[in-house]
Amino acid sequence: MLNTLIVGASGYAGVELATFLNRHPHMNITALAVSAQSPDAGKLLSDLHPQLKGVIDLPLQPLSDPAEYADKVDVVFLATAHEVSHDLAPEFLKAGCVVFDLSGAFRVNDENFFTEYYGFSHQHQQWLDKAVYGLAEWQHDKIKEAQLIAVPGCYPTAAQLALKPLVSADLLNNAQWPVINATSGVSGAGRKASMNTSFCEVSLKAYNLFAHRHQPEIAAHLGVPVIFNPHLGNFPRGILETITCRVKAGVTREDVAQAFQNAYHDKPLVRVYPQGVPELKAVVGLPFCDIGFAIQGEHLIIVAVEDNLLKGASSQAIQCLNIRFGFPETQSLI
Amino acid sequence: MLNTLIVGASGYAGVELATFLNRHPHMNITALAVSAQSPDAGKLLSDLHPQLKGVIDLPLQPLSDPAEYADKVDVVFLATAHEVSHDLAPEFLKAGCVVFDLSGAFRVNDENFFTEYYGFSHQHQQWLDKAVYGLAEWQHDKIKEAQLIAVPGCYPTAAQLALKPLVSADLLNNAQWPVINATSGVSGAGRKASMNTSFCEVSLKAYNLFAHRHQPEIAAHLGVPVIFNPHLGNFPRGILETITCRVKAGVTREDVAQAFQNAYHDKPLVRVYPQGVPELKAVVGLPFCDIGFAIQGEHLIIVAVEDNLLKGASSQAIQCLNIRFGFPETQSLI
Amino acid sequence: MLNTLIVGASGYAGVELATFLNRHPHMNITALAVSAQSPDAGKLLSDLHPQLKGVIDLPLQPLSDPAEYADKVDVVFLATAHEVSHDLAPEFLKAGCVVFDLSGAFRVNDENFFTEYYGFSHQHQQWLDKAVYGLAEWQHDKIKEAQLIAVPGCYPTAAQLALKPLVSADLLNNAQWPVINATSGVSGAGRKASMNTSFCEVSLKAYNLFAHRHQPEIAAHLGVPVIFNPHLGNFPRGILETITCRVKAGVTREDVAQAFQNAYHDKPLVRVYPQGVPELKAVVGLPFCDIGFAIQGEHLIIVAVEDNLLKGASSQAIQCLNIRFGFPETQSLI
Amino acid sequence: MLNTLIVGASGYAGVELATFLNRHPHMNITALAVSAQSPDAGKLLSDLHPQLKGVIDLPLQPLSDPAEYADKVDVVFLATAHEVSHDLAPEFLKAGCVVFDLSGAFRVNDENFFTEYYGFSHQHQQWLDKAVYGLAEWQHDKIKEAQLIAVPGCYPTAAQLALKPLVSADLLNNAQWPVINATSGVSGAGRKASMNTSFCEVSLKAYNLFAHRHQPEIAAHLGVPVIFNPHLGNFPRGILETITCRVKAGVTREDVAQAFQNAYHDKPLVRVYPQGVPELKAVVGLPFCDIGFAIQGEHLIIVAVEDNLLKGASSQAIQCLNIRFGFPETQSLI
Repeated sequence: MLNTLIVGASGYAGVELATFLNRHPHMNITALAVSAQSPDAGKLLSDLHPQLKGVIDLPLQPLSDPAEYADKVDVVFLATAHEVSHDLAPEFLKAGCVVFDLSGAFRVNDENFFTEYYGFSHQHQQWLDKAVYGLAEWQHDKIKEAQLIAVPGCYPTAAQLALKPLVSADLLNNAQWPVINATSGVSGAGRKASMNTSFCEVSLKAYNLFAHRHQPEIAAHLGVPVIFNPHLGNFPRGILETITCRVKAGVTREDVAQAFQNAYHDKPLVRVYPQGVPELKAVVGLPFCDIGFAIQGEHLIIVAVEDNLLKGASSQAIQCLNIRFGFPETQSLI
Repeated sequence: MLNTLIVGASGYAGVELATFLNRHPHMNITALAVSAQSPDAGKLLSDLHPQLKGVIDLPLQPLSDPAEYADKVDVVFLATAHEVSHDLAPEFLKAGCVVFDLSGAFRVNDENFFTEYYGFSHQHQQWLDKAVYGLAEWQHDKIKEAQLIAVPGCYPTAAQLALKPLVSADLLNNAQWPVINATSGVSGAGRKASMNTSFCEVSLKAYNLFAHRHQPEIAAHLGVPVIFNPHLGNFPRGILETITCRVKAGVTREDVAQAFQNAYHDKPLVRVYPQGVPELKAVVGLPFCDIGFAIQGEHLIIVAVEDNLLKGASSQAIQCLNIRFGFPETQSLI
Repeated sequence: MLNTLIVGASGYAGVELATFLNRHPHMNITALAVSAQSPDAGKLLSDLHPQLKGVIDLPLQPLSDPAEYADKVDVVFLATAHEVSHDLAPEFLKAGCVVFDLSGAFRVNDENFFTEYYGFSHQHQQWLDKAVYGLAEWQHDKIKEAQLIAVPGCYPTAAQLALKPLVSADLLNNAQWPVINATSGVSGAGRKASMNTSFCEVSLKAYNLFAHRHQPEIAAHLGVPVIFNPHLGNFPRGILETITCRVKAGVTREDVAQAFQNAYHDKPLVRVYPQGVPELKAVVGLPFCDIGFAIQGEHLIIVAVEDNLLKGASSQAIQCLNIRFGFPETQSLI
Repeated sequence: MLNTLIVGASGYAGVELATFLNRHPHMNITALAVSAQSPDAGKLLSDLHPQLKGVIDLPLQPLSDPAEYADKVDVVFLATAHEVSHDLAPEFLKAGCVVFDLSGAFRVNDENFFTEYYGFSHQHQQWLDKAVYGLAEWQHDKIKEAQLIAVPGCYPTAAQLALKPLVSADLLNNAQWPVINATSGVSGAGRKASMNTSFCEVSLKAYNLFAHRHQPEIAAHLGVPVIFNPHLGNFPRGILETITCRVKAGVTREDVAQAFQNAYHDKPLVRVYPQGVPELKAVVGLPFCDIGFAIQGEHLIIVAVEDNLLKGASSQAIQCLNIRFGFPETQSLI
């Protein structure tokens, strides 16, 4: 049994982490924590998320000193703000914990990236060097050896799972940047009161055009530039991405199918559709990323869907945990 | 042309008021105002409510001194918090304005009512004495003469329109209190950021059981005690009330139908169904209250629906305006 | 391992049954079936319900002759129309199968009940005599011995779980019938194309007032008359019931709390709230019924919520299965 | 006063047409009609659409012989299926009526177009020659003279309003096809019972990739090829289109703004945003198309929103009517 701490347990990703870990046969939830300033500190997790009444009634401990927990736990999940993860992760890492960070603080090994896109100066280049990007289907061997796993962002997970097989097989015409049109459920904005996510205000809309930090995350790890058009949808959970790109002359439907087959034939949590494209409901509440495509001439449209809180956050973190510790990859996920 | 000021114009009821007044042939919107502390002060109404771009692009003036406006306008609509209305209304009334108050500050002529249910001590008994309760279908003659019209609450409007004909016709068995089961759209909670109305948190729920201040408002004006079970529904607008009550022995379906007919046959904004009961969509976006019923033995179930922001707030305020100034009752409403 | 057949597997309750059974360590899904006329016959379950791709890819067999399956399976779940269950159940029972029927065909031991409320003449009085009503928390010992378990309707489950403790403890004033105001998600209407459940038509509404067949089911098993006001809500899953009743003079909050405590302190799937009332989201996707209440004088309001497809249908069927075969009551449910 | 007939009045676009015409000071609704086979024939429009009770209580006449109406009306609106419009329009045109057709039957002057994309052989080349495509902002002078106005499709209206100014100003790099990613509310699928639009089945999804007939309609009228990715969204009304295209080297933000300004500065029903992009709620229930854009280097993203039933269907038809008969362009629309 591995002892584990979840920091940021009160948020939407945190509560999913707690749910997965609670039913994981090799994991023991030692404590749930939130920042010391959080109005949720001291409450039960099940006070905030009534579905957990009688299931997980643990209190949300105010986290003032990481050292209080570092010696008691083997594994730490950080479902915290970027700057908070940036500050906390090294504390736990130094104590020998394995850290799964769901924020953006260690996703790209480039200090300047954080100054430019996250607005803070990164202080831990040594940990950036050691961090492994937790795109589970593509980083298996590195995850097995890692102490710090930077779990990818929600949009980047689906986008990369859709595009990496094509980039790897060199099927894309680079003269034209892939257009990633993505729509996310409102839970992607986090659990907090804001006008932006107020029930009567939410309405389908594009936002942060040319200015969303998942664009450079995708481009950095994919190795090709992309246009990324994020949208807020009027539903609580899930992401649907429709990606329009251009293939090289002569590339056929079979070539594309083969690229996906090569990439995912032995990956249990990516489901490639032999025909048609997935709809959002296929994955809501589930740890899968589903992928389908249509092709006409040199124009290729890929549709990828996932639950933003699961494959786009917490279930991918658990998938990484399973890989890291040699548990079955889908343990407690399906 | 009457000059008018809307205070609290940025909220959901305020924006509906502005829309109605903007197309009213006898009304001129002199200014829109919000409290001086509001973060919306200085913005255009259409910045907050983009549907009004090019339609109503007036700025939201910070209201510091009512006297600035009192001499320039004939009519004031207060779509403000109860305490704010309590303080502002007398200022405008003294200057001779006709005031339509959408808050609860003047709805019941009993100072103690406010101490008990609203948590503040009422300072204006003289205006409580003069205020007319604006339940338009029942107060026509008093509204015509009033200077201060206290527009009823959203829940009380539907409840009273459903029950008053029966009380008036003495059809109810008073041994059993009517059970008013009501579900309101989220806009009823107002336009502000809160966890309670956050998109991912909203879920059908009962709230304030035995403790909602619309219960005494209904009972006071109806003259009979009621049980009032308010619910928050997962939709933006509208109220549906299912009211279960007991009729006196021998009361027939025809008696009930006749009571409604007598009350509303000449009222354009209450639609009584000859058979069946209304569903919510019949009234969303419209100024009607629709009423239907079912009866079996001595058990009577009435269903009443309205748009909480319209017949439950702003369109009833305009209806009162039309009555007060002798315009056609439905002017600019349908 | 018990071999099992699900008839009516393509519907919303059927797919939940399949999901639970698929992860049940003591159950083997031998086959999924639909009526021979169904347009779904021959398709994969995962073609209709894409969330199951790669999880349950079994075909939906057209069921022409029950005998084909009766000898191969130990357990049959009927998620079929009332008349279909009425005809099929005896075929499987004669072959020795244990049958869990999710329809209304065997819920009340009174032939006339079916003529009056279901519009067909019941032909199997001997099976009505033997059928056990599967309200799991109240019928444990009978379920253990039963061959035919009639799983309760969705509305009746929540209503009875809320009211039975009070009736048993004789706390209710029978002069006033409990008013059960219930709102169900659209999935309660089943999986089929109809204008009534068309996306743009759905709107909160009361229906079948004084005429819903769950009213007599509740009254028959509860032993007291009730007024039952069903509503269709604009959400896919879940039921919320707000029940207003009258307690005998002198009954206190503690008496009510004690009655619930006595009934459910050792029942893992009913969660009684020490204070406050549950909201719908507490149970969506979960096998619980959550109950809370408020009391003022002799007026008692109880709120009960459940997932109509789970505790109101399939998870309660699995709960009955677990009880019947001696598995842990919550096996594969939480 | 012009007498008018609406055929297909029971559908979602038909009911909006009826609502607009009912309040139009120069129009008289002579009759509402549906096909003779429709189950709605003989009902009142307000039986199907309860919001119209007391507002428009006209019956839906079964249309067997167009000649019955052709002599009595000046204007006909066809909100009918493509083939039905194809057959009916000439009957009314021959009698001298002015016809506004909301179907696709006369939108492209190319007989082969209908064989290829609509699956029927067009019989009325002479009317194809005379039909005017009713994209109101771009066809003003032709609409003024037309007898047959083919009102554009919902998706093509927003797409063309967004792209035509750029094509006209020759700002686009034609080496790269514009990618039109569009999401429509469910009402776009029409008013009928189907699994596809069933409440519990609807979920964000792409459909008809490379195979939607609005793609050739857009391309034909725009004069450039486009990639069109339609999606069904989980909301009742509205269309949001996010269009990614490439501008010629050297084209600036100001060039794009100027192109929109030139096109729409005097058009009351297209609102161009000086900054930012519109969200869906800005136009739901309103006759506007709102347009905004973002540019970075040669990459241009345009967002256009409209109500699919209004600017994408019925309000554009009324706008065309107003232009055709010299009424103010926005008469009865805002």
